[in-house]
Amino acid sequence: MSGLPTITTFRWVPEFARGYVRDLRARWAFEEEGQAYAVDLIDGPYAKSAAHRHFQPFGQIPTYRDDEVEIFESGAIAIRIAEQGSHLLPTDTNGRLRAIQWVIAALNSVEPMVMQHAVVTLFEADCPWSPMRHDRVVADIKSRLADLEAALGDKPWLDGETFTVGDLMMISVLGGLRETDLLADFPKLTDFVARGEARPAHVKAMADHLAVYADAKAA
Amino acid sequence: MSGLPTITTFRWVPEFARGYVRDLRARWAFEEEGQAYAVDLIDGPYAKSAAHRHFQPFGQIPTYRDDEVEIFESGAIAIRIAEQGSHLLPTDTNGRLRAIQWVIAALNSVEPMVMQHAVVTLFEADCPWSPMRHDRVVADIKSRLADLEAALGDKPWLDGETFTVGDLMMISVLGGLRETDLLADFPKLTDFVARGEARPAHVKAMADHLAVYADAKAA
Repeated sequence: MSGLPTITTFRWVPEFARGYVRDLRARWAFEEEGQAYAVDLIDGPYAKSAAHRHFQPFGQIPTYRDDEVEIFESGAIAIRIAEQGSHLLPTDTNGRLRAIQWVIAALNSVEPMVMQHAVVTLFEADCPWSPMRHDRVVADIKSRLADLEAALGDKPWLDGETFTVGDLMMISVLGGLRETDLLADFPKLTDFVARGEARPAHVKAMADHLAVYADAKAA
Repeated sequence: MSGLPTITTFRWVPEFARGYVRDLRARWAFEEEGQAYAVDLIDGPYAKSAAHRHFQPFGQIPTYRDDEVEIFESGAIAIRIAEQGSHLLPTDTNGRLRAIQWVIAALNSVEPMVMQHAVVTLFEADCPWSPMRHDRVVADIKSRLADLEAALGDKPWLDGETFTVGDLMMISVLGGLRETDLLADFPKLTDFVARGEARPAHVKAMADHLAVYADAKAA
């Protein structure tokens, strides 16, 4: 081990997945904390092997390891990176727990709806039931986004003036809607996502993420 | 405020929801930690009010407050209760982060599939697309459960000999399948859920949860 915290991600992903793979969340957190890190690139078949599943039972990425910790789940990885740094987690107890709350809200209350939208419009677009489900899925996610926009209000970040790991995770989840028109009805959420994605740490993380696949293409 | 940590839950829920409402997760965590707590019962319409949404933007329960912290999301609440106690979070860094990882795995990698199963068989059972989707939804969740069963292996709990808040959350999520036959193909997961639900803390939490609705029925 290099001494640097290390994540795994895929050496190659199809074009539609570029810009969305969850190693982005770890990369963004590292950049916000100014923490150097290493990346192990793995192949799709290896991700499904027993060797990788020992660290990630669902055969997915990213995994994370450092000198003390070996974990999976992008939410847990982001919390670990934030705990090791000094920027993404408020030091007061309420602020720290509220940041964790927003990480979990992103992953449990928002992402499942983003995912169902991807299911009907992408992963199961060709299935006969998807056109029938479409409007219901859109209505459900719009209702959730309206609630989230109301909670954000005119604050720059979910809990006020301070960007936390909770904002990072929520913006990453909402970024899954980047190529849809779903955010168009929600100007405050649109601005929130744009503010997050304009942060130098996000710009760097996205560039490094995409560079892996640019290289793969050229190879 | 009474000085006791306090959660909100619904004063009444329809019969199919009894035994599944997420206040159970907080109750179970409190019981595991031997922590006394208070419950504020709220009505459905109040949950959708601006007053409640100030604490829970999606109009849901539970919320949690103590002398320091006000949060929502059952996963964050369980982590808070575990941090305040001495039983549900290992004290070594890797063990603590792995417990949080399993909380998030339950909420982000397993619960969305449990929820889609409830959508096709219950919430959208009458929709014309649900019978068409059914087999795909079942195949997806069975694949995920097979991975989880392999990860559990012959260990009593997800990370070995010690029951953590991660087991609590995963068992609570899998408990959502209690009235289906989906766990029948997975004897190790079936035993894992049964082991968790037989813990005195779970038995007490479930009884206290159901008593709210027994009272509501009698009233």
